[in-house]
Amino acid sequence: MDTSIEQSLITLTTNPPIHNSVGIDSRDVGTPDNWIPRHPEMIRLTGKHPFNAEAPLSLLMEQGFITPNSLHYVRNHGPVPKLKWETHRLTVDGLVSKPLTLSMDNIESLPYKEFPVTLCCAGNRRKEQNMIKQTKGFNWGAAATSCAIWKGVPLSHILKLAGVEDGTHNKPRYVCFAGCDKLPNGYYGTSIPLEWAMNDANDVILAYGMNGERLPPDHGYPLRALIPGCIGGRMVKWLSSITVSDKESDSYYHYYDNRVLPPEYDMERATKEKIWYNPDYIINKLNINSAITTPAHNEQISLSSFVSTKEYTIKGYAYTGGGHKVTRVEISLDGGKKWLLANLTQPELEHPAVLNRGINPIPRFWCWSFWSISVPLYSFIRCEEIAVRAWDASHNTQPQEPTWNVMGMMNNCHFRVKVNTVSQGKEFFLAFQHPTQPGNNPGGWMVKPEPLPLKTAMVTGLSTTNNKKYSINQVEKHNAEGDCWIIIDKKVYDCTKFLKVHPGGIDAILINAGKDVTDEFNAIHSNRARSKLTNFYIGDLSEIPQAKI
Amino acid sequence: MDTSIEQSLITLTTNPPIHNSVGIDSRDVGTPDNWIPRHPEMIRLTGKHPFNAEAPLSLLMEQGFITPNSLHYVRNHGPVPKLKWETHRLTVDGLVSKPLTLSMDNIESLPYKEFPVTLCCAGNRRKEQNMIKQTKGFNWGAAATSCAIWKGVPLSHILKLAGVEDGTHNKPRYVCFAGCDKLPNGYYGTSIPLEWAMNDANDVILAYGMNGERLPPDHGYPLRALIPGCIGGRMVKWLSSITVSDKESDSYYHYYDNRVLPPEYDMERATKEKIWYNPDYIINKLNINSAITTPAHNEQISLSSFVSTKEYTIKGYAYTGGGHKVTRVEISLDGGKKWLLANLTQPELEHPAVLNRGINPIPRFWCWSFWSISVPLYSFIRCEEIAVRAWDASHNTQPQEPTWNVMGMMNNCHFRVKVNTVSQGKEFFLAFQHPTQPGNNPGGWMVKPEPLPLKTAMVTGLSTTNNKKYSINQVEKHNAEGDCWIIIDKKVYDCTKFLKVHPGGIDAILINAGKDVTDEFNAIHSNRARSKLTNFYIGDLSEIPQAKI
Repeated sequence: MDTSIEQSLITLTTNPPIHNSVGIDSRDVGTPDNWIPRHPEMIRLTGKHPFNAEAPLSLLMEQGFITPNSLHYVRNHGPVPKLKWETHRLTVDGLVSKPLTLSMDNIESLPYKEFPVTLCCAGNRRKEQNMIKQTKGFNWGAAATSCAIWKGVPLSHILKLAGVEDGTHNKPRYVCFAGCDKLPNGYYGTSIPLEWAMNDANDVILAYGMNGERLPPDHGYPLRALIPGCIGGRMVKWLSSITVSDKESDSYYHYYDNRVLPPEYDMERATKEKIWYNPDYIINKLNINSAITTPAHNEQISLSSFVSTKEYTIKGYAYTGGGHKVTRVEISLDGGKKWLLANLTQPELEHPAVLNRGINPIPRFWCWSFWSISVPLYSFIRCEEIAVRAWDASHNTQPQEPTWNVMGMMNNCHFRVKVNTVSQGKEFFLAFQHPTQPGNNPGGWMVKPEPLPLKTAMVTGLSTTNNKKYSINQVEKHNAEGDCWIIIDKKVYDCTKFLKVHPGGIDAILINAGKDVTDEFNAIHSNRARSKLTNFYIGDLSEIPQAKI
Repeated sequence: MDTSIEQSLITLTTNPPIHNSVGIDSRDVGTPDNWIPRHPEMIRLTGKHPFNAEAPLSLLMEQGFITPNSLHYVRNHGPVPKLKWETHRLTVDGLVSKPLTLSMDNIESLPYKEFPVTLCCAGNRRKEQNMIKQTKGFNWGAAATSCAIWKGVPLSHILKLAGVEDGTHNKPRYVCFAGCDKLPNGYYGTSIPLEWAMNDANDVILAYGMNGERLPPDHGYPLRALIPGCIGGRMVKWLSSITVSDKESDSYYHYYDNRVLPPEYDMERATKEKIWYNPDYIINKLNINSAITTPAHNEQISLSSFVSTKEYTIKGYAYTGGGHKVTRVEISLDGGKKWLLANLTQPELEHPAVLNRGINPIPRFWCWSFWSISVPLYSFIRCEEIAVRAWDASHNTQPQEPTWNVMGMMNNCHFRVKVNTVSQGKEFFLAFQHPTQPGNNPGGWMVKPEPLPLKTAMVTGLSTTNNKKYSINQVEKHNAEGDCWIIIDKKVYDCTKFLKVHPGGIDAILINAGKDVTDEFNAIHSNRARSKLTNFYIGDLSEIPQAKI
């Protein structure tokens, strides 16, 4: 066993943590997640359910290096499985000589590692891509990344217990993970190469602790895979089985999610050409990325303050994958002609959990870096935008322009904040604009004035009408699996027959049955999905809603 | 010992190889390298000596996946050490329990690996940087990369024989290499982390074979370090000692070479702030890079051929570091608005030496990839330039624009070939222009009409004159260490006192003593060096050279 495994920093209880300040959100009432405390400020990106959420960017940054559990971004594909510590089991099978079934108490009794890791969704900054052209994915802002102290047993330790063949293999082997979240296309699952899991320098663990507490339900209670330097999509939550195989995971989500396709591929061509199975397009290690977090979106500086204040400190984060170091961050105030070197800090180097582990021969960087640079306030007067780019230890840097891809993933172009001049009464201000705001929140220089209604209007099917009118009250009665109506953009659809073939699953529609789901629908559906709606159109919503009984 | 070590493909003789078609070049007569056969078509980038050379790009590409030894790029800092197989020794010492001294026969009797590796100089494509602003380095074109079959003993095997502590270390350890090439600032040396050397998956070897022959003298005969996925600058040639240490190599060249500094650093500031010792700026793993090789520079297509020929195949190479795969190459014909997916081949996957090794669990890619894409000829009619960019397995790609750095290293911006229209008599042609041509060769769209004379004129010191005139014959007589004159841009300098403090060493000047060294000087010196010349100015060359006796 690796001798660098540290002593526990905090004793854990066996119950999932309950935050006093974080209760059941009214938006979760009536959903399968109505038992999970959630922070009210988390921005929901896929309507009410499933819960996909990021913290407001400034609030996230205020937390510093470690993100509190309740503000850590969440990516759920469906309802959160209701699991118990006492009854949950992990099975380990496949190409191992001693298949195992482990209880959580078994797992907790094993040696462990505890250290900070920054998680990133492959879709971080996707809304910028959606502003170019709608992708298959929903609108992540720049806060689909967070950092926590994770505690768990090294995966290599579990695999050795199960009698996995050690050392170099002549044939490729994979560790396949599966979770308990049953989804429309089966359980969520994915895999990583066995060699990656067995190399202790990669720090792959099965985590049961997060920031000194049990995992919160949204983060995989009671057990998840934790693969530093890798996209969040491989870190299976509610982990129930591990299978060592000579093939990659056969889960639908291993192939049809977390891929970057060349820009010329839309969904139709991708599926026709089976490009999803091309190993070149899988995403594992994170690419180099950074964002400006100060100035915040809509932050203003009064021009009169220029007399008293001389400097402004621009701030942000940067990260990369594979354990590489972010070695350099630069900002430009003149459209990229000149780049100024920012101060760069790697708080993980100073973190007790990392210091306790001793010096690594080749240090791995699993966490985000923070950067800052003070510039004279007058630099902004003739500045149209602030751009940031980071560099990694291999001297790769971020591309200047985004490259659109149908999944909208791994967007890592220069992050640009526009500088405008605005007046309020007699006073003038510099006002900053980020490229987007998460979800359907308005604002951002990439966002066209009214994108969604415009887009809707462009799909000819939606302009059809049959002159039938339904009141809200009438629609509300059709709220069951055998009789399910919904309202989108003031049009009424009978989705009853569609429920079972809905790519997002029955529940995603059912929890909104009988309701206006315009926001939820627009957040995640393409124009192609939109055009399919016409098949279920039955009439229009009455212009003046009747009084509720 | 790693069981994947293969049987020798070819039996080696004990003499360095002599190529029938490659004799002693007249340019080497009178230099310390006058015993080394060299291919006449190699383009010399630092005058006659030391030998720094690349093959013409088209000739290099014609060779295909494996570059013949005589056309492999060469980077020599000084004269090539004249070493013998029989007497050469490798010492292994430092933090090892059993220090060793090994003969070449000892080394050759050990287990070995033999496989293809693409080497790249960190300065590949530097001339593009020099066209923005002169860097400290000389003008590499895009052929400072080549691929050979290397044969040698795994470094980990040698280190284990020497009793190095195995496995995980709590303190950083380094493997320091030193060569036999004595240079102005001591022997060439550098280091890599011990962990890197000990991980057999990294395939670090001490190589004595190249393409089935002994190493040629220019490539380190009889022994060199070979570190796949890493820049050539770490692969110490004429290797004579290995020291395991808790510190990095203390060689001057480990710190003052092969670094990428932020663009705001010039040499003066870099040295003043001791930025050379900042570990963030060292270059180890290669970044993602690619180049267009077809169309070649100055290639022309007759517009009349558009009637008979319909397609043109654009071709090139791509590579990246760290064993990562190049997963995607794209070209743009419209300034980056649209990118077209090229066909991509990884010949190493099919190479017998790699196939013999069996399947790696996580395959490492140590070689260049080739890409091609056929486009309709008419695509060029309104096309201003062809640009290429590659992507790696971490979804990093090349930056659009170059970022100048004082060493001119790791230049990996989009490689752009301009498309012009030219007429010859009644016929019209499309003519292609690469960004630069290597060395002081003219041509390239980045090259200003007469860059060097212009730059010279800008250094005020050089416009001084004292009205003294010397003939070529007079200058030629001052050709010794105690009396050394040279001619640069028709001005005569007495360098006798400067010889011992010349940063490039005594020999680099002495072999040209009494001669016109304008080309050699301009190839590698900055304006700062140029301005120092004035201290040694003694007069002008007579306008009309006298007849030689």
